[in-house]
Amino acid sequence: MLRFALFGAGRIGAMHAANIAANPMASLAWVFDVNKNAAETVAAKHDAKPARSADEALADKTVDAVLIASSTDTHVPLITASARAGKAILCEKPIDLDIKKVEQCRKDIAKTSVPVQIGFNRRYDATHRALRQAVAQGEIGTLEVLIITSRDPELAPLPYLKSSGGIFRDMTIHDFDLARFILGEELTEISAAASVKIDPGVASLDDYDTVMVTMKAASGALVSINNSRRCVYGYDQRVEAFGSKGMVQSDNPLPNMLKRSDAGATQSLGVLHHFFIERYRQAYLDELNEFIDRIGKGLPPTVDFEDGRRALIIADAAFESLRTGKTVKLSYG
Amino acid sequence: MLRFALFGAGRIGAMHAANIAANPMASLAWVFDVNKNAAETVAAKHDAKPARSADEALADKTVDAVLIASSTDTHVPLITASARAGKAILCEKPIDLDIKKVEQCRKDIAKTSVPVQIGFNRRYDATHRALRQAVAQGEIGTLEVLIITSRDPELAPLPYLKSSGGIFRDMTIHDFDLARFILGEELTEISAAASVKIDPGVASLDDYDTVMVTMKAASGALVSINNSRRCVYGYDQRVEAFGSKGMVQSDNPLPNMLKRSDAGATQSLGVLHHFFIERYRQAYLDELNEFIDRIGKGLPPTVDFEDGRRALIIADAAFESLRTGKTVKLSYG
Amino acid sequence: MLRFALFGAGRIGAMHAANIAANPMASLAWVFDVNKNAAETVAAKHDAKPARSADEALADKTVDAVLIASSTDTHVPLITASARAGKAILCEKPIDLDIKKVEQCRKDIAKTSVPVQIGFNRRYDATHRALRQAVAQGEIGTLEVLIITSRDPELAPLPYLKSSGGIFRDMTIHDFDLARFILGEELTEISAAASVKIDPGVASLDDYDTVMVTMKAASGALVSINNSRRCVYGYDQRVEAFGSKGMVQSDNPLPNMLKRSDAGATQSLGVLHHFFIERYRQAYLDELNEFIDRIGKGLPPTVDFEDGRRALIIADAAFESLRTGKTVKLSYG
Amino acid sequence: MLRFALFGAGRIGAMHAANIAANPMASLAWVFDVNKNAAETVAAKHDAKPARSADEALADKTVDAVLIASSTDTHVPLITASARAGKAILCEKPIDLDIKKVEQCRKDIAKTSVPVQIGFNRRYDATHRALRQAVAQGEIGTLEVLIITSRDPELAPLPYLKSSGGIFRDMTIHDFDLARFILGEELTEISAAASVKIDPGVASLDDYDTVMVTMKAASGALVSINNSRRCVYGYDQRVEAFGSKGMVQSDNPLPNMLKRSDAGATQSLGVLHHFFIERYRQAYLDELNEFIDRIGKGLPPTVDFEDGRRALIIADAAFESLRTGKTVKLSYG
Repeated sequence: MLRFALFGAGRIGAMHAANIAANPMASLAWVFDVNKNAAETVAAKHDAKPARSADEALADKTVDAVLIASSTDTHVPLITASARAGKAILCEKPIDLDIKKVEQCRKDIAKTSVPVQIGFNRRYDATHRALRQAVAQGEIGTLEVLIITSRDPELAPLPYLKSSGGIFRDMTIHDFDLARFILGEELTEISAAASVKIDPGVASLDDYDTVMVTMKAASGALVSINNSRRCVYGYDQRVEAFGSKGMVQSDNPLPNMLKRSDAGATQSLGVLHHFFIERYRQAYLDELNEFIDRIGKGLPPTVDFEDGRRALIIADAAFESLRTGKTVKLSYG
Repeated sequence: MLRFALFGAGRIGAMHAANIAANPMASLAWVFDVNKNAAETVAAKHDAKPARSADEALADKTVDAVLIASSTDTHVPLITASARAGKAILCEKPIDLDIKKVEQCRKDIAKTSVPVQIGFNRRYDATHRALRQAVAQGEIGTLEVLIITSRDPELAPLPYLKSSGGIFRDMTIHDFDLARFILGEELTEISAAASVKIDPGVASLDDYDTVMVTMKAASGALVSINNSRRCVYGYDQRVEAFGSKGMVQSDNPLPNMLKRSDAGATQSLGVLHHFFIERYRQAYLDELNEFIDRIGKGLPPTVDFEDGRRALIIADAAFESLRTGKTVKLSYG
Repeated sequence: MLRFALFGAGRIGAMHAANIAANPMASLAWVFDVNKNAAETVAAKHDAKPARSADEALADKTVDAVLIASSTDTHVPLITASARAGKAILCEKPIDLDIKKVEQCRKDIAKTSVPVQIGFNRRYDATHRALRQAVAQGEIGTLEVLIITSRDPELAPLPYLKSSGGIFRDMTIHDFDLARFILGEELTEISAAASVKIDPGVASLDDYDTVMVTMKAASGALVSINNSRRCVYGYDQRVEAFGSKGMVQSDNPLPNMLKRSDAGATQSLGVLHHFFIERYRQAYLDELNEFIDRIGKGLPPTVDFEDGRRALIIADAAFESLRTGKTVKLSYG
Repeated sequence: MLRFALFGAGRIGAMHAANIAANPMASLAWVFDVNKNAAETVAAKHDAKPARSADEALADKTVDAVLIASSTDTHVPLITASARAGKAILCEKPIDLDIKKVEQCRKDIAKTSVPVQIGFNRRYDATHRALRQAVAQGEIGTLEVLIITSRDPELAPLPYLKSSGGIFRDMTIHDFDLARFILGEELTEISAAASVKIDPGVASLDDYDTVMVTMKAASGALVSINNSRRCVYGYDQRVEAFGSKGMVQSDNPLPNMLKRSDAGATQSLGVLHHFFIERYRQAYLDELNEFIDRIGKGLPPTVDFEDGRRALIIADAAFESLRTGKTVKLSYG
């Protein structure tokens, strides 16, 4: 039985709390949030205790693991403190927006041996995962071209965007990790293009809402990512992997399979999931269950601190490519 | 808050128990099953009490409703007793395999005014329901042709089939109800064709495993149903409604959207749901939630005893058509 | 080199003329039509001679084959005369609307040994043909259920319908033949249901515009056909064959593959082919080319007089089933 | 009636000859090819004369137009000579592999006013064209992201590749033009990535077989192109245009619509067209017919010399980007 302390009781935190409670091998012991009411509500729902501070929960020797779903700026301090307290860690992405802080954190926890998993939920999507498996098993021969399309339903509010670290660190970072997951090898260079097409306010933040990234992997495989912050037909998340023996495509699931044919056209009337909470609901559950299962068995996480660090290095390089107009060599040193 | 007694703690009963527990407007008070252990297990999981008899639960004045998920032969006695005890009733299909018992039950509960809902779960499938709505809203003009395909993944064991009432009463009955639901009018005649293609043992039971039914509705709309007891690619459940202004089709949902293209073909690698528990999981939940909602508001169920009775009348007529080689006029008198 | 006389220079005849001219192993020698201008126009286009009568063309010893695309009532006399003249025959369906005339024709040509092919063009549709091949090669195991959907874009004018022989002999006859082609075995019984949903004028002709037919084959395989005389989204021609090891489906080809996703839905913007000339253009060509090839090699046609006769027997039985309300046993005696 | 001289009687030339002959407003007068036999064969088939030289055909005052389908190195001299002779010109892409020769040709024909159309056949593909139309009509709002996938079935022989000008000038040039066609505005910058994944022999030619290109348009719209020289599942040609109000996708047509479902998966058994001759057969015809129609009406071609020149400028810039590792500003000066 894995006893959890949950840091962050917002929408994602509350979902994780329910997922922990639903797993027969886990239980929720503590909930901490700077919003005391939120912590109390989530704690009450799952027979856990609200904590006055993260430290109070970390001091509890019966706590085995922490789930960090608080704001990004708290990730590094909480990872560091949790690691020092010897707790297994599942932390939402990103580790931090500043690679220097990530590097410092890496050093700080290097001496501990706690497992740290970063919450790249897309690795747990059933279809993306099946695509990865097909690639790994050689079903398309050698992977040569990888195309990731990822479009959010609507632009987040500008205040959110202001502290988001920019589109590559906030949004594309998921796709950088997904690319690494599918490739099974390292990315070696990157070039980026970006525009502001949705809201001029985004430009005033020195940010972009529509981007394309091209990367090359060690094997010479080419990767293209396209992102938009606004997609009127829903949360569009697709992957196409092309290789020497064929192609696999991860298409969007449709919650409703109704089709209508009339004099004008045949329509699929089922619209896409609205956003990540709906699309990746099962992925979040499977992610947590794998974490619980592996920690219980003494196995390391399959997506770890280093994965989070490398995704951020790639995001930084994407901005550098934009600034310099050059293809940037990636180095993870 | 609607307090339930659950009769039947098998696989379907256990699912209903969880669905009741998950609804904030309902709670599970009692569980009865001839298998005492099963009742105790389900009761314990949801803080309910195991009952020594159905009567014990029915005697509890605080119980508002019953959910009948026990074996078919117990449906009529339990409906009658529950109605007399003034409990709202949600009973799994069919009411009974013998129309005489159904008629007697109808008389016996006529003086009570309890709401009785029959568990025709397909009416709650999101896509079938959207199709019904499209038809009702005139999106395809006048409905002229309705085609229902319904194929089980594998033949049930012969002992089960022996007491099933025959394929029309056990399996096609769902499609008879679904046809009535979509048409929004009564069926007036029926003709059936049937074969034994899967297992000769089915013939020894005077039953069939592969059937086709053609029906006409009052408006002249034509309905075709095809059933097979064994479908190697999964639980195939599709509906096509064709009318003066177009067509709507309810296609099978795919749990996995992976496609693979190679030198031979492009494959959808996501297989269909295995069977009704997986395919109609959400439908069962929505069915129960609607029942709870409507009972709470004093509204009658949208699918009731009379729907269950008429579906059985049609099933009987299908067998009569087979016996006589004639098109049979339907009469619900 | 196969030299043809063409009887009938209407739309279908003109198409056949062009197909003959395009085949390097064939040439068009004569064209006859009761409309002299039509014959002259078609003849001129392909360096053929207009004939003053069918007999003039049949008297030409250098003519090897005839293509009969004239009105239905001329088919039997032309088949008989052509057979007596020793010409290979490709005749559009149906042989005749009256089974007695067909039987007489059968006797009249029995002593000749000329090959007679009936123009059931759907057997040559690439996808229907691939479906037949998949069934024949056992790809779906034993065929158990066959469903044919065939819907015309719009109701033909009532004067045409008046002399059409009724929907089963005019329209469904194609599907009867297609069913026999796919099954590879004989149909043994039939039951029909029919309505007038499109135009009351059809009822005044004692005919129907919306029909369903259920048939059983010798093996017990069940067949369902549904026809409508009016389909607003185009010429809908689909086949589904279901068996012990899976299912094959022949779907409609789409001339345009554009899809559009917007806030409401995802639409396939390519509409179906309008009607048979467009949908089966290539099938007509492949049909003729096969005829030329096989006659050239001394091989019998793959779809012959007997196929035309049996399809008509089934159509007659469909009307009998409607009249009597009974399932009719099929006998081809 | 437009009288043509055809230069080049290879596979593409022969196809154009047949297309000219099939158009009632055009006729084929002369055919020239360095391979005299090829010229004679094509000429004989369409009642044209074989020419001893291009000049012989150009000297014929009754010739209105030329179709240039000879080898790339002959395009510029033939365009120049034909323009001086006052003939309307339809020339296969590319104009030349060397931008200097293209610039010289531009100057040389500047004083003539002959219409020059470049054979970018994809602009005439029904679905690509419908996509362009949907974009132009604002169906997806403002175009923001354009993704073009273009994959050949198999690597051309190395000797062919050696004189091809490199993948960007030989293959991607089609996609550069298609992007310009769909965008309806100019591309302003480009960045390229490239690998050799199929055959090391390609590297020995200083060429690539797998490439990705990212471009930005004047409006800020972003364009991604991916090319592979070998695609085992056929000739893969897709376009996706995403905008503020939705998305349109041009998918591959399937010559065969058969689907098979078995225990493992549902397969589309129709494979893609093998290559451009099959996929764009109708496009070639429509391209020629538009040319004939517009020249006949005195209208300028819709895709002209300048389009050919700009596509080559972009191809050159793609190579420059590869060499320099920089995003290259596009200038058409």
